[in-house]
Amino acid sequence: MKDTLLSHIEYPEDLRKLSSDQLPVLAKELRDFVINIVATKEGHLGASLGVIELTIALHYTFNTPNDLLVWDVGHQAYPHKILTGRKKLFHTNRQLEGISGFPKRSESEYDTFGVGHSSTSISATLGMAIASKLKGNIAKQHIAVIGDASIASGMAFEGLNHAGVTDANMLIILNDNSIGIDPSVGALKEYLTKAKVGYKPKTDNIIEALNFKYFGPIDGHDLPTLLNTLEKLKTIKGPKLLHIITTKGKGLKQAEENQVTYHAPGKFDAHTGELIPKKDIQQAPKFQDVFGYTILELAKKNKKIIGITPAMPTGSSLKYMMEEMPDRAFDVGIAEQHAVTLAAGMATQGLIPFCTIYSTFLQRAYDQLIHDVALQNLPVIFCIDRAGLVGADGATHHGVFDIAYLNCIPNMIVAAPVNEVELRNLLYTATLGLEHPIAIRYPRGRGKIINWKVPMTKILIGKGTSLRNEESEIAIISTGTIANNIIDALESIDKKVNHYHFCFIKPLDSNFLIEILQKHKTIVTIEDGVIKGGFGSTIIDFANHNNFTKKIITLGIPDRFIHQGTTEELQEICGISAKKIRETIFNLS
Amino acid sequence: MKDTLLSHIEYPEDLRKLSSDQLPVLAKELRDFVINIVATKEGHLGASLGVIELTIALHYTFNTPNDLLVWDVGHQAYPHKILTGRKKLFHTNRQLEGISGFPKRSESEYDTFGVGHSSTSISATLGMAIASKLKGNIAKQHIAVIGDASIASGMAFEGLNHAGVTDANMLIILNDNSIGIDPSVGALKEYLTKAKVGYKPKTDNIIEALNFKYFGPIDGHDLPTLLNTLEKLKTIKGPKLLHIITTKGKGLKQAEENQVTYHAPGKFDAHTGELIPKKDIQQAPKFQDVFGYTILELAKKNKKIIGITPAMPTGSSLKYMMEEMPDRAFDVGIAEQHAVTLAAGMATQGLIPFCTIYSTFLQRAYDQLIHDVALQNLPVIFCIDRAGLVGADGATHHGVFDIAYLNCIPNMIVAAPVNEVELRNLLYTATLGLEHPIAIRYPRGRGKIINWKVPMTKILIGKGTSLRNEESEIAIISTGTIANNIIDALESIDKKVNHYHFCFIKPLDSNFLIEILQKHKTIVTIEDGVIKGGFGSTIIDFANHNNFTKKIITLGIPDRFIHQGTTEELQEICGISAKKIRETIFNLS
Repeated sequence: MKDTLLSHIEYPEDLRKLSSDQLPVLAKELRDFVINIVATKEGHLGASLGVIELTIALHYTFNTPNDLLVWDVGHQAYPHKILTGRKKLFHTNRQLEGISGFPKRSESEYDTFGVGHSSTSISATLGMAIASKLKGNIAKQHIAVIGDASIASGMAFEGLNHAGVTDANMLIILNDNSIGIDPSVGALKEYLTKAKVGYKPKTDNIIEALNFKYFGPIDGHDLPTLLNTLEKLKTIKGPKLLHIITTKGKGLKQAEENQVTYHAPGKFDAHTGELIPKKDIQQAPKFQDVFGYTILELAKKNKKIIGITPAMPTGSSLKYMMEEMPDRAFDVGIAEQHAVTLAAGMATQGLIPFCTIYSTFLQRAYDQLIHDVALQNLPVIFCIDRAGLVGADGATHHGVFDIAYLNCIPNMIVAAPVNEVELRNLLYTATLGLEHPIAIRYPRGRGKIINWKVPMTKILIGKGTSLRNEESEIAIISTGTIANNIIDALESIDKKVNHYHFCFIKPLDSNFLIEILQKHKTIVTIEDGVIKGGFGSTIIDFANHNNFTKKIITLGIPDRFIHQGTTEELQEICGISAKKIRETIFNLS
Repeated sequence: MKDTLLSHIEYPEDLRKLSSDQLPVLAKELRDFVINIVATKEGHLGASLGVIELTIALHYTFNTPNDLLVWDVGHQAYPHKILTGRKKLFHTNRQLEGISGFPKRSESEYDTFGVGHSSTSISATLGMAIASKLKGNIAKQHIAVIGDASIASGMAFEGLNHAGVTDANMLIILNDNSIGIDPSVGALKEYLTKAKVGYKPKTDNIIEALNFKYFGPIDGHDLPTLLNTLEKLKTIKGPKLLHIITTKGKGLKQAEENQVTYHAPGKFDAHTGELIPKKDIQQAPKFQDVFGYTILELAKKNKKIIGITPAMPTGSSLKYMMEEMPDRAFDVGIAEQHAVTLAAGMATQGLIPFCTIYSTFLQRAYDQLIHDVALQNLPVIFCIDRAGLVGADGATHHGVFDIAYLNCIPNMIVAAPVNEVELRNLLYTATLGLEHPIAIRYPRGRGKIINWKVPMTKILIGKGTSLRNEESEIAIISTGTIANNIIDALESIDKKVNHYHFCFIKPLDSNFLIEILQKHKTIVTIEDGVIKGGFGSTIIDFANHNNFTKKIITLGIPDRFIHQGTTEELQEICGISAKKIRETIFNLS
């Protein structure tokens, strides 16, 4: 490393030795450092570039880690990580055994609260501030940094609403860049936009109405202003909010201009900023695109079809429908609870709402699934993206609990297609007059079928299929795309094994399952969700209640949190990679 | 029935035949009707008395059921039910096979959306309004009635934030009575209170900031003003909010003066309003009081202990601690998500937060349980009240999913004490330095032990116990207070049966369980939660994975929604009453 300012900084105490007029130089170095590493190692780029100055200002002004700093969502925490002891590890970001792409308590005392999902920072920081007050630490500072997309989520409002009636010593920094992963939406966003262009309500603004002292808006890239303002805020007690305006992707032209693409751009040229194109081989589609293109295709033929996403138009590929049918496809912001009940309301009026949510984020709307949809048996279609292990995003983002938490809900149909074509057919089938809500789960990433856009056919709800049928006493029963690992495993094994695919976890294909249980001596279930309460557990239950008393081996995610790595590495760890499955099958007596 | 105005009204079309100056008389009759029936049949009183005039005005002004009316929470919907075809059934309110205490789609076309949990009405109504717009029904009206406690919940904010950027034809009526079940809290409540006393921000208020047209505040008991205002609002397009001020319990002196008590007062004298005292026999305590008194006792000795409730100080009995230690016990309003993450934030600072939430409402904070608490392995103590079947509140309120949805979360300890003393000891044990978060579930209502306030002793986490030990090949394994039904069942049966209590569903007492599985030919598990993914399912899994191949009978809540009735009646239906358990045991070979 060259003899730069950054080369002398391992921890904030080193940073604080600099004079304030050196900080803009450090900002340039830190920005280059982030760009250079993310360019080759991949990861979240734009959000971190937008908070370079803020991160420096915060650690310079406040006495971290004694003062407590919480980064909402956390994908903007790269500069924070680099300035708090992890500069030399930063090249391992998001890798197996490397540092996490998000703040993580076990990694550093500077990471005061683990994040990954949005809008938790206000509640967590308030809890810390109340704790300090009770302990008599009056001077301790508690700072939440939250974006304008995240603060519009209901959970953040709940935190504001409580904090406003406390005298907790907390500072919320509203990092307003008008974008989450996709551009921010909603009435609050429009309000904040007005505030930015100088619209000043005469008496109080929406933040002051909630009893917060409001400061700003100020330019979040202007270090002297940031430093002055933060220094002043240190002396002001009680709940306060500083509104700063930043540019996502700041300092890299392409990232500023294409903020959605450069949110997590993959590999790019650190000098020119240009994306490094993937090799031009014909690839199977992303599952999200199978959803995105198919719903558009279906919606063109059926006016009742509606699309809803909570803040993931790009990630879910609902954007194709949003572009062509803005009246019928909705990005409701980071508002999973609202998304689900909005869909329920639409379903009461005979519309056919598709609500697409990542598996891990659907946890935010669990009550709405039960209380608003399933209890009323409304035929809402949940397209659950990022189901299973998701790779580099790690423990906060794996979609591994959904089978367990959905399976216990009465009236729900729970399905996991084996490939792109089955996903497509399920989406089609769901529009043909469902009698129940349905949850269709599919993974992050690409499938294997290049020519997936085939004519759609109706699937029989609750029907299992045979993928491999031999004279064998061993049966593998799987659900979802993990079947592909099994297919790979069985290709190179010198053993006769049958393989059954249950697209429907609920309702189970009872007749077929009885037949399988009768015909085989050994049963192995495989899924990419948690074993506890999962698909395999359901098969064991079924066997037990139907008087089959044979041991069933269940492969899936064990009862602990799985951290980051490539999906393949994590599947290996969990014993559901093709290799591990082959070993398990091979060792069966 | 006397020849009153009400006697001629079965449906809103009858109501609309009256002249507007007859309506105050009808209001008096309707109020008396509600009071007379609730006085003997019990149910929610105060909220319905507060919306008598509003209900009449809405059905008089709007063309229900074509115009769509959604009652948030729904315990205020008694006058609505009486005016929409259910007057003659109203005496069956909340009873088995009777009408539900909440709006329910399957009961009436006037019940446009099933409710029970709060803050869903804005999202549901917006979904309906968007549907009407797409269908070209421009004149159709969509009305959500929501209280000031419910609108402060995050989900409601999400709905407002979305609605404010649509041109949906929806009217939100904010029924502001400053109280939910307990008095409303939070910054928004303080803001609304200022609005009521004539504080008028010069430019926009918080509602207008979210792009709603704001009307009011007006007196919600003044029928002419209500009628005029609603009539005017019919012609105003787009999202709008009418702020009305009402008095919970209006028209019954005691109910106005003791709003918390008269929320659901039990039996009372319809003429005097006086509560009818329960027979003065010495009763075992409510489980909530075991929690409420014990946390206070513990908190007096340990400064780190904190209490948190989302809007249930009375229902959870956290009020005892709140009264004595207002700095350390928090009602955060209807904000389950915030409550859980606030507790997590406190736990990071070494406090010992007890977060008490009804089982059914904890569904609202499922993601926070996983992402903010369990993933970080923070030792938050969840006191899950109203677990199991809750009786008259019915399907929206049963706490039957918790075992299933908690069991799949890594790091969680899940416990269900058998009685008051074990609950007390668990609460004590949880303060002695937990290594994991713990969820302690206990039911609505009273236990059986009058002298429960015994010296506290530490419980070994993960230890099962034997409640009945005979020479027998039949073992019953239960968790939680359902054990009492089993004890009753076994008292009068001429059969040798062993009975084991697993206070800990997770971690399981493996050694003990292996011993039980070895010693017995027949295993019956019994729980008051859903069978799918529940305790029994866990036992079957364990047996399977430990090479026991015997059939296990699992009793619990079947895979369908259970409606209202007494808890005893519902336990009978689910096969877990003492009588049904006795039958099951008796019929075992």
